[in-house]
Amino acid sequence: MDLASLIRDVPDFPVKGILFKDITTLIRNADAFREVIDRMADHYAETDVDIVVAIEARGYIFGAPLAYKLGAGFVPIRKPGKLPAKIVSESYTLEYGTNTLEVHEDAIEPGQRVLVVDDLLATGGSARATVNLVERLGGEVVGVAFMIELDFLHGRDKLSGYDILSLIHYD
Amino acid sequence: MDLASLIRDVPDFPVKGILFKDITTLIRNADAFREVIDRMADHYAETDVDIVVAIEARGYIFGAPLAYKLGAGFVPIRKPGKLPAKIVSESYTLEYGTNTLEVHEDAIEPGQRVLVVDDLLATGGSARATVNLVERLGGEVVGVAFMIELDFLHGRDKLSGYDILSLIHYD
Repeated sequence: MDLASLIRDVPDFPVKGILFKDITTLIRNADAFREVIDRMADHYAETDVDIVVAIEARGYIFGAPLAYKLGAGFVPIRKPGKLPAKIVSESYTLEYGTNTLEVHEDAIEPGQRVLVVDDLLATGGSARATVNLVERLGGEVVGVAFMIELDFLHGRDKLSGYDILSLIHYD
Repeated sequence: MDLASLIRDVPDFPVKGILFKDITTLIRNADAFREVIDRMADHYAETDVDIVVAIEARGYIFGAPLAYKLGAGFVPIRKPGKLPAKIVSESYTLEYGTNTLEVHEDAIEPGQRVLVVDDLLATGGSARATVNLVERLGGEVVGVAFMIELDFLHGRDKLSGYDILSLIHYD
């Protein structure tokens, strides 16, 4: 199946000059959604994964089915103020300003093998912050998975040394 | 498995006087997460479901695996400003003020059979707004599923006439 053909380009979103890759047109297609999850799961068929960690909000759409299929637990990374118990946080820089991501400090046990999932790898800031959160809690990052990678933004440079999976590439 | 025993009570979150039901302690447990998804899927084993619609953000954690397991497409309901293409929106009242939910206007085809999923049924405002969105697009709501229902808030009164599934009840 040509997954890329199901992604909708939306010009000037969220700001002028950005060509937004809209995944909603792919995931509403049952066969395409299934293929994405199956291809991700196949990549980790020989990998022990205790926990899938995914980044709010679109990361949950891929991370939660992958956790289910791999027989792993699921841990949500959230934007500030959403988690009710004690948290640890990481901030990262954007073109303008900073973003912060949070996780419960008891979400991962030391030594657990963790797969990090998000919908899209752009500049890599949120994925790197998430890897840092997992490692601060004592987790071992066994992979980082995306449906889409925007190769021209070189986000994987921030994840060197980790096993990176991306199903769809834009040069 | 005693799913309720894995939910953490956090007092005074997000505001003083609220006892928050923290699901993160359940879903990080692989066996418990699997059981939740399997029990939901079993409930719809004899139901044709074309699309699972879930409410940002925690609803995705249950809705996306359920879509995968049922062989359905997935449609995210989002908070304002997040969806890039043309949307329809519904607002609903809270104790103080209003919230708005949005969906792409081409997310559901008329006649598609739609299952609505969220983590928790409280007063029912967001679930009812989502049902309205689905029906405005011509979808047929074949069920509304939650992991938790706070019975004392009577949210199901806003969903009378629909098939409601809740795995865990608090009186």
